[in-house]
Amino acid sequence: MTAKDTNHSTAPFRANVEAGPPASGIVVVCEHASHVIPPVWHDLGLDAAARVAHIAWDPGALALAQGLARRLGAWLVHASVSRLVYDLNRSPDHPGAMPAQSEVYDIPGNACISLAERSARTQSVYLPFHADLHGVIAGRLAQGTAPVIITVHSFTPVFHGTRRTVEFGVIHDADPTLALDIVAAATGSNLNVALNQPYSAADGVTHTLRLQATPYGLKNAMLEVRNDLIATPEAVESMANRLAPILTHAIAAHHAEVA
Amino acid sequence: MTAKDTNHSTAPFRANVEAGPPASGIVVVCEHASHVIPPVWHDLGLDAAARVAHIAWDPGALALAQGLARRLGAWLVHASVSRLVYDLNRSPDHPGAMPAQSEVYDIPGNACISLAERSARTQSVYLPFHADLHGVIAGRLAQGTAPVIITVHSFTPVFHGTRRTVEFGVIHDADPTLALDIVAAATGSNLNVALNQPYSAADGVTHTLRLQATPYGLKNAMLEVRNDLIATPEAVESMANRLAPILTHAIAAHHAEVA
Repeated sequence: MTAKDTNHSTAPFRANVEAGPPASGIVVVCEHASHVIPPVWHDLGLDAAARVAHIAWDPGALALAQGLARRLGAWLVHASVSRLVYDLNRSPDHPGAMPAQSEVYDIPGNACISLAERSARTQSVYLPFHADLHGVIAGRLAQGTAPVIITVHSFTPVFHGTRRTVEFGVIHDADPTLALDIVAAATGSNLNVALNQPYSAADGVTHTLRLQATPYGLKNAMLEVRNDLIATPEAVESMANRLAPILTHAIAAHHAEVA
Repeated sequence: MTAKDTNHSTAPFRANVEAGPPASGIVVVCEHASHVIPPVWHDLGLDAAARVAHIAWDPGALALAQGLARRLGAWLVHASVSRLVYDLNRSPDHPGAMPAQSEVYDIPGNACISLAERSARTQSVYLPFHADLHGVIAGRLAQGTAPVIITVHSFTPVFHGTRRTVEFGVIHDADPTLALDIVAAATGSNLNVALNQPYSAADGVTHTLRLQATPYGLKNAMLEVRNDLIATPEAVESMANRLAPILTHAIAAHHAEVA
């Protein structure tokens, strides 16, 4: 609708949707799956190294999300565009939606964004992704299933020069119940697990949960895995094997409560 | 996306969007604006009288919403399809989304809806409307404006045989602040105003607010006007003239707080 507001409009960049089993009660989301910067944005002025750094995407997160979705029998919805073009886990009025700086990197193509350009990116990247995710969730609800929503992220082991010791963070928004159950299920594994680390809702990182899960009262959690632990296909498989039973155990309790 | 689930798919029924001024900070929504039942649904088996009764739409609400939007300088988003096909103010898993009965009326075309048909209506009516409304709201946010969301409804003066004396109801979801300010501004007018009448959030009537306003922390309220007070074009104009200054006063306080 707002395309009329701007002359910067570009083709919509839809989400990638990998359908789960018909009766699936789990939707896995990966907002930072891709480091692709479509040609219209001219690499955002970044060099090749910056374009594949952790600022452009969450390395390993998509492969892990796919490994988890397969093991859990979940639907998977993942982004097709770099978070530097539009960070799908941020509201259009959040400075981090189209950041001029990310960690120690300047993003030249985001240094001075006009209102028309902000609207165009909201229209062509943010809205199509969330419409597609909404379609999957509403589709589950129409089938009589209240799905659990799990977002999958990775974080860099060194941030602003500080080493992070947490390996697996579980973050919640208003409803902490599923996140608490995941942490409880992971305690006793060999993973260094922590609640609301390395970020929390106070950092504005739970937008997708707030937009897509909370309005329907759906159980939800955001997972953050340190990216050095999922740096190769073998490491991803190993991590998916470790996390899948933890998630299955935690989710089962909530499906039982819903029924 | 979920169209693949079903062979019942129909063309999407988009929302009608009437653009406001570029800097507008108000979005008015009318989910029950229309009594149109598209031919594919064969009148839902209803006779002509039932098809224009208050169960099919909110009589007068669209004209009032248009009168208010014009006076307030607001954007307006309104439905193109009857609430009996899909009640846009209900989640897809709510029994009232495609009701088999409404007040004293049976709805034959909703008596026995398959899961495929529930999915098809969710896909073709619910999702397009809320995507269009989301587009307007996200467009405002991308422009740096946090809009106030006002939904406009009407209610029948006699419900299940009981006469309702309230004339103007103001309903809130989690954040009551704007609703309280509207009630305060209306007190002293000649209108019989009441908070959370004739319905409240506990009746499940705040879905649109919860889906579209709360995730962004936007101030919001649902207005309910008794439909015998807006039964003619002259009555609608009169009511719009009475309500516009009340809303302007209440909203101004919140825009001041935001700024």
